Parts: sequence; structure tokens; C-alpha cells
Amino acid sequence: MSKYDVIVLGSGPGGYVTAIRASQLGLKTAIVEKESLGGVCLNWGCIPTKALLKSAQVFDYLKHADSYGLTVKEFDKDFGKVIERSRGVAEGMSKGVQFLMKKNKIDVINGFGKLKTGKKVDVDGKEYTADHIIIATGARSRELPNLKQDGKKVIGYREAMTLKKQPKSMIVVGSGAIGSEFAHFYNAMGTEVTIVEFLPNLVPLEDEDVSKQFERSFKKAGIKVMTNSSVEKLDTSGKLVKATVKTKKGEETLEAEIVLSAVGIASNLEGIGLEDVGIVTDKNKIMVNDFYQTNIPGYYAIGDVVPGPALAHVASAEGITCVEKIAGLNVEPIDYGNIPGCTYASPEIASVGMTEKQAKEAGYELKVGKFPFSASGKASASGEKDGFVKVIFDAKYGEWLGCHMIGAGVTDMIAEAVLGRKLETTGHEVLKAIHPHPTMSEAVMEAVADAYGEVIHL
Amino acid sequence: MSKYDVIVLGSGPGGYVTAIRASQLGLKTAIVEKESLGGVCLNWGCIPTKALLKSAQVFDYLKHADSYGLTVKEFDKDFGKVIERSRGVAEGMSKGVQFLMKKNKIDVINGFGKLKTGKKVDVDGKEYTADHIIIATGARSRELPNLKQDGKKVIGYREAMTLKKQPKSMIVVGSGAIGSEFAHFYNAMGTEVTIVEFLPNLVPLEDEDVSKQFERSFKKAGIKVMTNSSVEKLDTSGKLVKATVKTKKGEETLEAEIVLSAVGIASNLEGIGLEDVGIVTDKNKIMVNDFYQTNIPGYYAIGDVVPGPALAHVASAEGITCVEKIAGLNVEPIDYGNIPGCTYASPEIASVGMTEKQAKEAGYELKVGKFPFSASGKASASGEKDGFVKVIFDAKYGEWLGCHMIGAGVTDMIAEAVLGRKLETTGHEVLKAIHPHPTMSEAVMEAVADAYGEVIHL
Repeated sequence: MSKYDVIVLGSGPGGYVTAIRASQLGLKTAIVEKESLGGVCLNWGCIPTKALLKSAQVFDYLKHADSYGLTVKEFDKDFGKVIERSRGVAEGMSKGVQFLMKKNKIDVINGFGKLKTGKKVDVDGKEYTADHIIIATGARSRELPNLKQDGKKVIGYREAMTLKKQPKSMIVVGSGAIGSEFAHFYNAMGTEVTIVEFLPNLVPLEDEDVSKQFERSFKKAGIKVMTNSSVEKLDTSGKLVKATVKTKKGEETLEAEIVLSAVGIASNLEGIGLEDVGIVTDKNKIMVNDFYQTNIPGYYAIGDVVPGPALAHVASAEGITCVEKIAGLNVEPIDYGNIPGCTYASPEIASVGMTEKQAKEAGYELKVGKFPFSASGKASASGEKDGFVKVIFDAKYGEWLGCHMIGAGVTDMIAEAVLGRKLETTGHEVLKAIHPHPTMSEAVMEAVADAYGEVIHL
Repeated sequence: MSKYDVIVLGSGPGGYVTAIRASQLGLKTAIVEKESLGGVCLNWGCIPTKALLKSAQVFDYLKHADSYGLTVKEFDKDFGKVIERSRGVAEGMSKGVQFLMKKNKIDVINGFGKLKTGKKVDVDGKEYTADHIIIATGARSRELPNLKQDGKKVIGYREAMTLKKQPKSMIVVGSGAIGSEFAHFYNAMGTEVTIVEFLPNLVPLEDEDVSKQFERSFKKAGIKVMTNSSVEKLDTSGKLVKATVKTKKGEETLEAEIVLSAVGIASNLEGIGLEDVGIVTDKNKIMVNDFYQTNIPGYYAIGDVVPGPALAHVASAEGITCVEKIAGLNVEPIDYGNIPGCTYASPEIASVGMTEKQAKEAGYELKVGKFPFSASGKASASGEKDGFVKVIFDAKYGEWLGCHMIGAGVTDMIAEAVLGRKLETTGHEVLKAIHPHPTMSEAVMEAVADAYGEVIHL
């Protein structure tokens, strides 16, 4: 029976990052994976979708080449090749993780891991033991009873990124990051897309101004948007799926080749031995403390299986925090109020902190600033003027409560707000940090200036 | 005779921003401009070049469409339309400044302003007076005796962005931001480009690692790179310009349709009455104190006419600092050690603070970290894996001494480093600021992690 300091269950961005950090800290580490190294994120999520979306972006450039002074006579997408490229990127990344495991001397145990009492893990009949066992088994597409996935006509994200043939029409149910990204991708590729959202706004976790701008952009791009709507029933008996959608105005029947269910995720808690060991769960999540210890000593959990935002970067940060604590480092708990979130549709969305509504509800008096990219020189030069940066400050103490961006490239710009907020910046300091001209990032400075009545370019 | 609180000479990004901020602060303000509002930056610099470079980027996407799973049968650039688009963007921005002047109730005086004693400005024979006169007349392309510009075959940046016909071949002299951007643009358009740099490295102000990566990328793109080389003589008598270039190996003669001189700038100090008023200049710059006061009370100078980096964002910041001081606000001098610089070629370059060499020469003991985009998931998905982020920390106190980036979109990523350095962040804080996955911005976090032996993805 092999003995480790740390065994990690699952090799997604939670698990493999945890394993690497553990190994860096001198802990003898193994990782258990039933499928491909890198988990959903690398193989079926973040990475391959970004590859698809890049193809969509370039395809959009082809469509609008004339507005840049270029002429394109004949062009098309090769859907199969777009998918193939995405799979190639995912495979490359997965191989990268394999390399990292080797380099960091982490034992990779292929198979399905099951927790046992006494700090043991059973992998397909073979037993391993460790002082610290970290559960990082992640999540999968959530299935709703009225959106039963058959993997053919009613699919989840996994099938959505490997369709053999491009569908002529698609209904996307749910407008979180996953739903919105696929809606954008398929629409850009030429599929007729309808997106159905139960709540009043698309990307309902975002600031309302962002949601509204996003809805305008989606509609302009030709996506049919149905908010305040829910899919009640699917009839998959015919060639097309018939979806009965309940709207505020009554029921409507839509037809499409494919229905993509993107109504959230469900943690992978089944069959991994939680009950045998006695680990407490609640509402489909494993209960942990600030350092990701479960109720049973020696057993930890991180990532999508614990409460908090189910995001790759959160899982990684949780794993690092968890093993740094195990290794005896002086660790601070993660500040869950300062987690950025991104949606990589067109335009992109990136945000951190409270929305204006949340900040108001929390009782703050606010200073709100907004700078539209239509007033940005760089955005004009790039022909990418949709969107804005919105900032929210506490009027009393100057705390930067929230930052909300929508526009080209904003997913690479939100880090400034995250770091600034971590360092407890004031608006004045952001204003006096000289942003290079001409960049999209000036919009952050200008939005802050707007909040304080000092905006220049409005 | 009209009397103002503030008269600004020149309406570039120094001048017009100064005027707006002055007006916001309740000062009655006028601005004098001999040409188009917005100055060189808006009309002949930052903005129109970014428009050209965007066309080049889209054209590059057309060329490589197949690597994204797309097919393009026949495509071309329409050089005239590319130029036309760029002019349109510049005109739009200039009109924007016109609108801002009106909105902020700033009087625009068209004509050539000349300083007079007694706080007066003469504009083509008409006199205006103000308590505070701010010189923001900017700069122009520097002419060297052996690179005499005739505006036809030997040109500066201004002609380079309005050529009627695309040249078949071009020699670019100087590889600072301007030279490098045009070299990239014309090469992307299909012109045969040679870039000649006197110093040992391209973009010689950047960290050596950045210069080397940049040179590799330029060569890969088909640009002929000549470093340690200088143009000694031009013969413009024939159809092609003959350039005698001195290299380490001896003299070489190059031929090209066009020679673009990008060997720096010269301040616009002539004929504006500096001598009459008695304002002290040194080495082609107006001498000022921390708040941009010249030696003569009531006369100030900002932007390219004063020492310091000749950059639009510096000019704007100086102007704001200058008028905030005039208005009696509690103002801090600008920290010239924290000014970002950007080059918008492909790949882009962005940097702030000391290079590794400078930091070593300053006697620091260093912690240096580097993260290549080849190890970034987002970069792989985007097919833009060239480049890296390099960070330099003081080993003793943890100060973030410098940050150097080369790669896609990095000009929008440097703001994080500027703000972080302003807030005196440590590497640890950058590391624990959760960067969203998958983004290019993760490379900043990873480079810092590398400096401290905690990098995950290497």
C-alpha cells in the first residue's frame, strides 16, 4: 500500500494546481484521475471553449473585413476544423499537465478514486493512504427533469463543443457564462440561436447595466433573446425538438435541431465514499472551514464541490490555500468578495465585487462612475466601441466596492481592479496611476474619474 | 483684450486635457491651436496609427484564417481604404475634442500663439491675457542631417500614415515605438521592410529579453532587422533611395522606395516667444519644477516640451497636475519611475519601471520571474503564444521594481502593474490577488510566482 503526504482526488484546475503546490512544499503527492488530466476545465470547459470563441472572433473579422479597408471575396468556416482545432488545444493543455505532474514528481493514479475511513483512497480496488486527502472531484452539467439530456438533441456543454455537424438552429437554455458563450459561438458560426433565461436579465449575476448592454449586443448580432422565460417541456419525437416556453405573455413553442441545457452544474459527490467516511454535505456541497477541512480530520475539499463560485481560478486558489495551510505556512483565508468572473462572448464581460444593486441593498452610499468605450480613442481605432467600464465606490470611506466591464478584451483588464481592491486602493490612487494612452484600460481610470466628477473624455 | 484664468498653448493630449481639467476646477480657460484639435496624438500619432495597426491585425487574421478552421479564397487589402479609415478615426476623435471644448466652455482660439511678457499671448496679431499660461506645443519628427526629410522619398511619421500608394519597399530608421509600429504595419501590408537601429537592440529602451523576443518575432514576420547599424548617407537622385548603412561588418547599400525616419522627436519651441519672455530652456526642453512652473511666474510648460518621457499619457498627467496645483488642490508630483510605455506592433510591448539591467546597475539584489505565454491556456486557445511577462522585485524589501510584457494584448495589461506599484504592493499580494482563468493576465501572477519559486504552470 503506497503512502503519501497528500492524495488529491480529481485533476481539474483545483486538483492539479493543488498537487503541484503540495509538491513544491515538499509533500509527497499523488493525484487520482478517472479520465483526462486537467479535468473539465482543460478538456471540456474553459480552454476548448476559448479556442472555439477565438475561431468565432476571427470569423467575425472576416465578415467585417471591409470596415477595416480589406476585401474578402469568398470565405467560410469549416465547422469540423473549428472543432478539431479546439480539441487539439485541449489535448495540448492536457499533455502539459501530464508534463507538470512528472516534473513535480507527482504520482498520477488513473482510475476512479473512492474515499475510505482511516485516510485511505481506493482506486479501482487498489488502496492508497495519505495524511491528507483532498477532494477536488468538480462538477458536471446539471440536469433538470424538464430538460433531460439525451446527448443527441438535448445536450450539455460537453456535447456542445464536439458536435459532428453544425446545427441549423439551437435553443440555449440558461444565460450564465456557459450558455452565453455557446450562444455567441453558434450564432457567429451561422446557427439560428435562441437563448432562454428564466430571470429578467441575461448573465443575471452581472450588474444590471452590463446585462442590458449584453442583451443589446446579442440582439444586434441576431440572437433571439427570451428573458423571464422558462422551458417547460421538450418534445424530442420529431426531427426538430419542440420546446414549450413559458413567457410573461403566455406559452410559446419553439423548434430547433438542438437544445443546449446550460442551467448550472451539479457537484460530483456520488460514489466517492463521502457517506462511508462520514463527511458532511449540504445542498450538494461538501461543508468545509476557511482552510477547506471537512468535518473529518485529514479530509479536505476544494473547488466546485464546496460552496462558493464554481470557477477554475477559485478552485486553484482554494487548493493552494489548503495545502499551504497543511504545510504550516502562514495563510490567509480567501476573500470571496474579491473574486473576478468572466464571460468570453462578444462583447466580453468581466467583473469583481458588488453590483450597484447589491451595494445599495447592503446600505452603502455610493459614488458610481461609468465610461463608455464609445468615448475611448483606442476603441475607436479598433472599431470596438461597444461596452463600458462601471465602478462603484463607497462614498464615505472610498472603498472600491465593485467593478463591472463589458467590451473587447475586458477579461484581461479586470485584474487591475482585483489587485487594486486587494490593496485597498482609493479611487484617487487609481486616478493618479498613469494609464497608458491609447489603451482600453484608460476606461478604468476614466470611470473612476467619472465617479468623482473628474472625468476628462465625457 | 480677452482675459482668462488659464490659456493653454497647443491642443494635444497635454493641452486639451489640461484645459478640460482647468475648466472643471472653475478656471476660465482658452486653448490656442494652429491646426486640428487633438494635436499630433489624435491627428498624426497614437490614434490614427492604432487604426492602421488594427487593419494590419485583421489582415494577419485573414492570412492565417485556416489555422482557426476558416477558409478564405481570395482576399486583399485596399491600401487607400486602410489609410482612409485611419483618417476617419482621427477626424472623429478631433471632432470629439471639439465637442469637449464646447461642453467645458473652453474658448478655442485658432491660430499660432506667441508668448508675450506680462502674461499675454499673441495669436496672429490678436492679444489675450491670462493669469496662467501653459505651454503645451508638443513636438515633431526630429530631422538628422544625414536623414533630411523631403516628404516624398524620405519621410516622417506624418507622411507615413497618409501615403497615397503603398510602397513596395521601405527602410525604417529607428526602432522606438514609432519606427517599430510602422515597420510592423507596412510589413503586414506586404511592403518589403528593413529596420535599421543604431543601438544593439530593437526597442532599445525595453528590457533586453523583450528586445530579443521582439527581434525574433520581427524576423519571423519577414522584416529585415539591422541592429548596431546607422544610415550614413541617402542618395535620392534615382527612382529608389540608396541608403548607405554602416554596420559592424562594414558598409552596406540598401535600396527602397521610401525611407522613414523615426529617430526621435524635437520639441516645438521655435517662434513661440520663449526668448522674449525669458523662459529658460536646456537641450531643446523647457525647464520646469515639479509643478511645471517655468522660471517666469505665470508661465508653465507640460508634455513633450519638458524633460521626461514624451508620451501622451505623461503630457495629460502633467497638465492635470499643473492646473490642480494652480487651483490650489493638494497635489503630489508625478512619480516618473512609474510611467508605462507601450509599443503596438505585433507582438505588443508594454512595460513600467526598471529593466533588469537598470535594476542591477542601481545596486539592487533581484528576484526575477518570467512566464512565457507558451505556457498559458488562454494564449494557446487564441493561437497567440509568442511573448512573456517578466517581473523584477527587490529581493530585500520586496519592492516591485519593473514589469515587462511582450505578447498579444499586453498594452491593456500593464495597468495592473502600474497600480500595484503605486500602491506599493509586494509580490505576495499580487500572487494572492486571484486572476481570472483563462486569461493572459494570469501570466502576471505566474511571473511573480516564478520570482518567488512558486510558479505553477512551468
